Amino acid sequence: MAGTLKKLIPLADRVLIRRIEPVTKTASGILLPESSITKNNQGEVMAVGPGQTTKDGDLIPINVSVGDKVLLPEYGGLQVKIDGEELHLFRNDEILAKFA
Amino acid sequence: MAGTLKKLIPLADRVLIRRIEPVTKTASGILLPESSITKNNQGEVMAVGPGQTTKDGDLIPINVSVGDKVLLPEYGGLQVKIDGEELHLFRNDEILAKFA
Amino acid sequence: MAGTLKKLIPLADRVLIRRIEPVTKTASGILLPESSITKNNQGEVMAVGPGQTTKDGDLIPINVSVGDKVLLPEYGGLQVKIDGEELHLFRNDEILAKFA
Amino acid sequence: MAGTLKKLIPLADRVLIRRIEPVTKTASGILLPESSITKNNQGEVMAVGPGQTTKDGDLIPINVSVGDKVLLPEYGGLQVKIDGEELHLFRNDEILAKFA
Amino acid sequence: MAGTLKKLIPLADRVLIRRIEPVTKTASGILLPESSITKNNQGEVMAVGPGQTTKDGDLIPINVSVGDKVLLPEYGGLQVKIDGEELHLFRNDEILAKFA
Amino acid sequence: MAGTLKKLIPLADRVLIRRIEPVTKTASGILLPESSITKNNQGEVMAVGPGQTTKDGDLIPINVSVGDKVLLPEYGGLQVKIDGEELHLFRNDEILAKFA
Amino acid sequence: MAGTLKKLIPLADRVLIRRIEPVTKTASGILLPESSITKNNQGEVMAVGPGQTTKDGDLIPINVSVGDKVLLPEYGGLQVKIDGEELHLFRNDEILAKFA
Repeated sequence: MAGTLKKLIPLADRVLIRRIEPVTKTASGILLPESSITKNNQGEVMAVGPGQTTKDGDLIPINVSVGDKVLLPEYGGLQVKIDGEELHLFRNDEILAKFA
Repeated sequence: MAGTLKKLIPLADRVLIRRIEPVTKTASGILLPESSITKNNQGEVMAVGPGQTTKDGDLIPINVSVGDKVLLPEYGGLQVKIDGEELHLFRNDEILAKFA
Repeated sequence: MAGTLKKLIPLADRVLIRRIEPVTKTASGILLPESSITKNNQGEVMAVGPGQTTKDGDLIPINVSVGDKVLLPEYGGLQVKIDGEELHLFRNDEILAKFA
Repeated sequence: MAGTLKKLIPLADRVLIRRIEPVTKTASGILLPESSITKNNQGEVMAVGPGQTTKDGDLIPINVSVGDKVLLPEYGGLQVKIDGEELHLFRNDEILAKFA
Repeated sequence: MAGTLKKLIPLADRVLIRRIEPVTKTASGILLPESSITKNNQGEVMAVGPGQTTKDGDLIPINVSVGDKVLLPEYGGLQVKIDGEELHLFRNDEILAKFA
Repeated sequence: MAGTLKKLIPLADRVLIRRIEPVTKTASGILLPESSITKNNQGEVMAVGPGQTTKDGDLIPINVSVGDKVLLPEYGGLQVKIDGEELHLFRNDEILAKFA
Repeated sequence: MAGTLKKLIPLADRVLIRRIEPVTKTASGILLPESSITKNNQGEVMAVGPGQTTKDGDLIPINVSVGDKVLLPEYGGLQVKIDGEELHLFRNDEILAKFA
């Protein structure tokens, strides 16, 4: 599967995202109370396109890089199934924020 | 929580806002009559994106800075939940005014 | 109240307006017949934003200044309540005319 | 009334129009048969704005001048009442033609 | 009537058209069979505006000239009545073709 | 008829098309089985406009030339009847492909 | 058929696609379990247009080349039938990703 994903190149300003489950315990293993869990949609960037080409032939760069953890809108994005795994394609401008 | 928020970087022209309750008494503690309370949505800017990239590759700067108290439209903005706290993402142009 | 208003800075091309009642008598106190009263929405400019930023980073200037008496469309504008007073935010292009 | 009108400055690309009744007799007083009367909306330009500001900061000039007789679309325009008189605000591009 | 029409100047990219009846006989007087009659809307250009002003202040020229025979869309255009005659205002881009 | 068509000049980015029947036998006369017949709309270019004028006054050239065989969308285009013959006006961008 | 396809030149930013069936066994012949099969729409690029012409007369290049395996949206694209074979025309920006 990793092989196929490596070979999938999003076009234009598209970003391939693998959604990630909300963290329910800290890195040191402490279980988090439900009220503190981030319930928003989060994902990891698997691949990014080159960016949208402007009418002057320039590329508007993508805001995120492979490996970035990002905050996604609840709705939107295009579900794609690659090698049996559900992934999502978002356009660059749809991604809300990233975790530094 | 503050740690997570510090690490959340809004993308493009997005602004992360924490809504604030209307003030019901003055700084010196005097209770305000209800008719004088500002009922509009107000918030505090928690984080700002770099600005929207134009088709020429320039950034349109964000109108507000972290810490600014701002006036928000009654509707609009995207609710996100970070570490159990409800925050809101607004696009730069949606923010109505700031308190100097 | 004046203190708060002075500190409220409209963003982008927004203009803060206080609607004014139609004049029903002349400055010298003569009552005007109803047919001659201006029934349109009029207002006074309380504060103006810096202007909309263009994609080239320039500012399109606001057409009115603080203190101007302006003609407003019957519908439109965003009602905000500051210190118990109803004010309205209009975008620069929504303001129809000013009284010189 | 003339005094107030003189002081009303349309903003941007707006044009203040006073509609005029269709002519039913010639200048020399001859009554015109109904079939030859111009039934379209006609008006006289009372005041013009400075023109719409482009994103480059230039002004697109207004196509008509004060005093011009113009042809108006049947619908459109914004009715305003100034000093008891019904006038209309049109945007520059809405005015169809002028009589030279 | 000709006098009034001569004095009517279309604004922006508008074109004043007089619709013409389909030709049912040849110039030499031979009646045409119905199947060969051009049933489309045709018209003659009576007056043209200066052209739409671009945001750079240039004029996009009008595609037709006074006297041109043109092909019109079945719907569209704005009916105006000048001196008892029905004429039509089309925008430059609405005119489909001209007869050379 | 050919005379009239030769004289019809499409305006802007319009292209005059004569639809052509699907080929049901080869050039050498062999009847084709129905499954191999191209069922899409095809046409021949009869006349082309000069191209759309950009806001800078340049012409965007037309993608096809007189005599080209083209592939057309199933819907779209404007039916016109010239000299009793049904023809179609398409805008340049509506034409899908051409046969080289 | 190949002859006809070779001669079909998509116009502007259109791309001619032949949809391909999902792979159900590996190159070495091993049958794949259904859960690992890519169920998304995939296709092979048969022909590409020159690219959309910008208002400055430049061409925005097409993101894919003849022979590329691409990922397609579930809906969209225009079905065309050439020589009895169903093919699809997509606009350049509709193609989601390509397999490198």
